[in-house]
Amino acid sequence: MIDQTLLPARLEVLECGDVDSLIKAIKEMKIRGAPALGVAGAFGVALAVFNAQSFEEVEDAARKLSTARPTAVNLSYGVLRAMRRVRTAKSLEEARRAALEEAKKMAEEDVATNRKIGEHGASFLEDGDVVMTICNAGRLACVDFGTALGVIRAAVERGKRIRVFACETRPLNQGSRLTTFELLADGIPVTLITDGMSGFVMQQRLVSKVIVGADRVVSDGFFNKIGTYSLAVLAKHHRIPFYVAAPLSSFDLGKRSEDVEIEVRSADELKFFCGVQIAPLDVEVYNPAFDFTPHKLVTAFITENGIFTPKELPELQSAEKR
Amino acid sequence: MIDQTLLPARLEVLECGDVDSLIKAIKEMKIRGAPALGVAGAFGVALAVFNAQSFEEVEDAARKLSTARPTAVNLSYGVLRAMRRVRTAKSLEEARRAALEEAKKMAEEDVATNRKIGEHGASFLEDGDVVMTICNAGRLACVDFGTALGVIRAAVERGKRIRVFACETRPLNQGSRLTTFELLADGIPVTLITDGMSGFVMQQRLVSKVIVGADRVVSDGFFNKIGTYSLAVLAKHHRIPFYVAAPLSSFDLGKRSEDVEIEVRSADELKFFCGVQIAPLDVEVYNPAFDFTPHKLVTAFITENGIFTPKELPELQSAEKR
Repeated sequence: MIDQTLLPARLEVLECGDVDSLIKAIKEMKIRGAPALGVAGAFGVALAVFNAQSFEEVEDAARKLSTARPTAVNLSYGVLRAMRRVRTAKSLEEARRAALEEAKKMAEEDVATNRKIGEHGASFLEDGDVVMTICNAGRLACVDFGTALGVIRAAVERGKRIRVFACETRPLNQGSRLTTFELLADGIPVTLITDGMSGFVMQQRLVSKVIVGADRVVSDGFFNKIGTYSLAVLAKHHRIPFYVAAPLSSFDLGKRSEDVEIEVRSADELKFFCGVQIAPLDVEVYNPAFDFTPHKLVTAFITENGIFTPKELPELQSAEKR
Repeated sequence: MIDQTLLPARLEVLECGDVDSLIKAIKEMKIRGAPALGVAGAFGVALAVFNAQSFEEVEDAARKLSTARPTAVNLSYGVLRAMRRVRTAKSLEEARRAALEEAKKMAEEDVATNRKIGEHGASFLEDGDVVMTICNAGRLACVDFGTALGVIRAAVERGKRIRVFACETRPLNQGSRLTTFELLADGIPVTLITDGMSGFVMQQRLVSKVIVGADRVVSDGFFNKIGTYSLAVLAKHHRIPFYVAAPLSSFDLGKRSEDVEIEVRSADELKFFCGVQIAPLDVEVYNPAFDFTPHKLVTAFITENGIFTPKELPELQSAEKR
């Protein structure tokens, strides 16, 4: 996969030969983005089977991989899908073929899913719209095309002129590093701002819509990159529609917000930047990687099965995983 | 003055021997903070008179210095105060003495003013309060004690236990670098967060009050570091009181928001961090250094003359400068 920590300065492909190196790459966010994590989970199971001498080894590896990052549901879902195939296999040889097949299928599905999300979402976007987004819900976060950025891409493919404000997304700057990189590569006009500028940009009426991705949608709201909740409150205050673009594999409607763990990452992410010290070494840091946005702040969810307002979510058949 | 770009890694004193080097230091934000800029403006005039061969030279230098940064009113106010003394002097020799005297007087006044702001503001803070702030409105932004942080210091001096959430304040990280440094030095507990975390921290009820500084208060609202407006909207949404601590020298009530220029700084502040590239070089960047918060989002202004709700502001005699 592409090493997402080196962009935009370097485009390097990362190869993981075993599950431990894959888990390390996930924890270090070399691989990130909910849909990409789902597919990585399935391929990780395939890797585990290829390297394993027994089914027990595979189960152990799957357990570790499944919890490498806790908030996005996709990682454990990808692991589960591949493991279902492994568990019905009669030999390791058969399990290898089955896991790899399932992983490849998930990768293909991801692109088709994002295309469908794009089709549904593109109908919301009007010629001349200016869309604000946070983090990277683009092709880098998926296998290809992207969710939130997929909606923008699909609208542009249909001839609509769309401009984007990308919030830089501290502390790891997925907005500065990845979203701008992707959009520039596609020739979609993008303006980079800091996260703190989002309110001011809305106040000046420079933005007509907000579209974000999701790491997990539960019955009372959704989890996404830290900073999303602030954007949602600001959009509400300025009466700007706020959309969430996500595949059904990110929906986990049997759970509520209190059932989901928000990953708290290392203090060093705020004390150092590219190795340079930017805060006192002994300062206390709070570094949650995600936040929770209640459904009342969401205008609609854009999925491969269509558009759902938060009230319509219970109607949503949330994929085969349940 | 202390070179504020090197903190917290290095504490170095910066000496400016002429107005050009002072202007450069101000533009590069080695000297920053509205009250500190006011005093720097007055000392800058003194420097100009010491180096000048004629009153015309002093007038030229004062004009350039006055507009080195456009948003905070204090810089031009400090220049104006010293220039008033220069203009009534009968010789350059007399002007030197007068300008230096006025600058020293402003520096002393600043500390006394901040102490009074602290006294008034401390009455608002209760034992156990957790205060969120942005940027640095502390002693580094002033001559000593600080405005927003001065209120916190004064409350702590009165035996109240206060904790602080410091927003890192992108793009120049005055929160990470300066506010945390100051508060740790005073033993006041501080937790560093990114700007995008502010909403989530409020949602979790971890904050009881917001206190910020101001670069300029006008008749319909106030200007302060970019990100302040987002905090104000978020505080309103969560019903958290939002206070602005500022000296009367930051009030410019004869003006409205549309009369004030918001400084837009270099794109490189978002493309590079400590010299490391963090965004594509050809991406468009919007980098306003300040934003505007309308009075309706402000609970009260804390000044050296007491506390004023936005509606009471017209009563405020806004210092001798008018």
